[in-house]
Amino acid sequence: MTRLRGLSGVFAPMLTPFNESGNPDRGAFIAHAQWLLEDGCHGLVPFGTTSEANSLGGGERTTLLEALVHAGVDPRKLLPGTGLCALPDTVLLTRHALELGCAGVLLLPPFYYKTVSEEGLFRYVAEVIERIGDDRLRVYLYHIPPVAVVGYPVAVVVRLAKAFPGVIAGLKDSSGDWSYTEALLKAVPSLSVFSGSEDFLLQNRQAGGAGTITAMANINARAIRALFDDWQGSAAAKNQARLSAVRAVVRDAGTIPALKAVLAHYRQQPSLALTRLPLLPLGEAAGKKLVDTLACDYGFTLSF
Amino acid sequence: MTRLRGLSGVFAPMLTPFNESGNPDRGAFIAHAQWLLEDGCHGLVPFGTTSEANSLGGGERTTLLEALVHAGVDPRKLLPGTGLCALPDTVLLTRHALELGCAGVLLLPPFYYKTVSEEGLFRYVAEVIERIGDDRLRVYLYHIPPVAVVGYPVAVVVRLAKAFPGVIAGLKDSSGDWSYTEALLKAVPSLSVFSGSEDFLLQNRQAGGAGTITAMANINARAIRALFDDWQGSAAAKNQARLSAVRAVVRDAGTIPALKAVLAHYRQQPSLALTRLPLLPLGEAAGKKLVDTLACDYGFTLSF
Repeated sequence: MTRLRGLSGVFAPMLTPFNESGNPDRGAFIAHAQWLLEDGCHGLVPFGTTSEANSLGGGERTTLLEALVHAGVDPRKLLPGTGLCALPDTVLLTRHALELGCAGVLLLPPFYYKTVSEEGLFRYVAEVIERIGDDRLRVYLYHIPPVAVVGYPVAVVVRLAKAFPGVIAGLKDSSGDWSYTEALLKAVPSLSVFSGSEDFLLQNRQAGGAGTITAMANINARAIRALFDDWQGSAAAKNQARLSAVRAVVRDAGTIPALKAVLAHYRQQPSLALTRLPLLPLGEAAGKKLVDTLACDYGFTLSF
Repeated sequence: MTRLRGLSGVFAPMLTPFNESGNPDRGAFIAHAQWLLEDGCHGLVPFGTTSEANSLGGGERTTLLEALVHAGVDPRKLLPGTGLCALPDTVLLTRHALELGCAGVLLLPPFYYKTVSEEGLFRYVAEVIERIGDDRLRVYLYHIPPVAVVGYPVAVVVRLAKAFPGVIAGLKDSSGDWSYTEALLKAVPSLSVFSGSEDFLLQNRQAGGAGTITAMANINARAIRALFDDWQGSAAAKNQARLSAVRAVVRDAGTIPALKAVLAHYRQQPSLALTRLPLLPLGEAAGKKLVDTLACDYGFTLSF
């Protein structure tokens, strides 16, 4: 299992807190990052899907990323999402992350046009890499067809990994389709393949994957980390089942607002429940019900 | 048919020419706009889907829009696309278009998150309108589920039109589903409903719609305009069939690169065929075949 060249572990696609005026709450963002790293995360993905990243505009991403690094978060633990629809924007964010010393970037494919050819997709990523033109760049492809609709076909990943060995360092598989992870691990064994959900964490570890980048790490990092570490232990299957059960409760409540509601409750900071449009916060009653279900059925709690 | 308060006619979602370095070719963009208005378009939609708008980044849209207006294109004939995934970006582009004196804006819904509630979608558009806070604003909703996946349910349009009478001025229906246009015209008779394809132009006119905003107007505006004007004439059905046949040839060749190839051929300006990644240009052979098919089977030609 030492074949991985890139990152591995449990990574949280960090929630983005907003204040009452609708702007990102920088202080809460930094505090959340620091707590996640204490709570068991190997690293953080600012600006993933769970981060409402595609609802962040203009300079909001760069400002927040700089805030993290300036607050003392080790950039080698950061894997920011930088993939936008427009190539020039993707290049700008990717270069910015590299200049800040981030471990790599998580790259969504351009997701507006839906009938993009494999050649077009390959050339898009190749062009980003070539415009950056820096050997230190590490790209983790972000495969999430349930949301982005556009995904990275295995053939495109293989071609990219061959064309840019080392630079194409990994992939986050949020397809929910284990056969995709399996096919990739077989086709490009050197790739750090993260499961996009801890539902697949045990399978991922058994197959030599890199771990998981999962929304649930925002509130359940400690338990996810325990399975990551002790995947060969006798309780692994039981622990996996428990992780999946807790995840299902949060997913059924509506993942992003649900995670924010749980965090707001235990931090006793109501504004943490706020989302940005088009997403809506969970609401007080639904939030309380979720917190109660997690506490009563799974003994779930958070401490800071 | 005088119930429309807003725009009507034939509008072209303008192609965006790029130069060999991959940047928008401002001169060619202006020339294309001027020619389209001479060729029969009532108005122009810079930054529609056909414009590769979501592949344009940073200041490219604002620069191009300013270039059009400064070149003398009447902003009252312009309906730029300003809908991005992130609300702050959408507000910036919308305000910019309004300040330039544009007739209105064509607003994509936020299209990254796919399970957005009707309430969230309503509030997103409402928030854009309220942040602009200017009675001169005219919003045309852009309903294109085949590409954006997220669309505007009829119930949301009705609610928006009631909440912001006059400001919600119209909608472009690119669903390809005539029953959607029909339902809207019935539910909100004052709305300027454009068909997103000239395939529905005759039906649109017969039902009291506003006309069409169609990719094909980039090369076939004169014929589309003729049907718009003479929809009650005896040759209307025949002309509609001919428009649809020509459209099918271009669509089968891959609409955006195909349109660019045709334009490049007749303008004798090869760079006009260039697209931006992730889209790829049609290639010389396919371009020549397309031009020949259009010329031989439909007597199609362009003059400038």
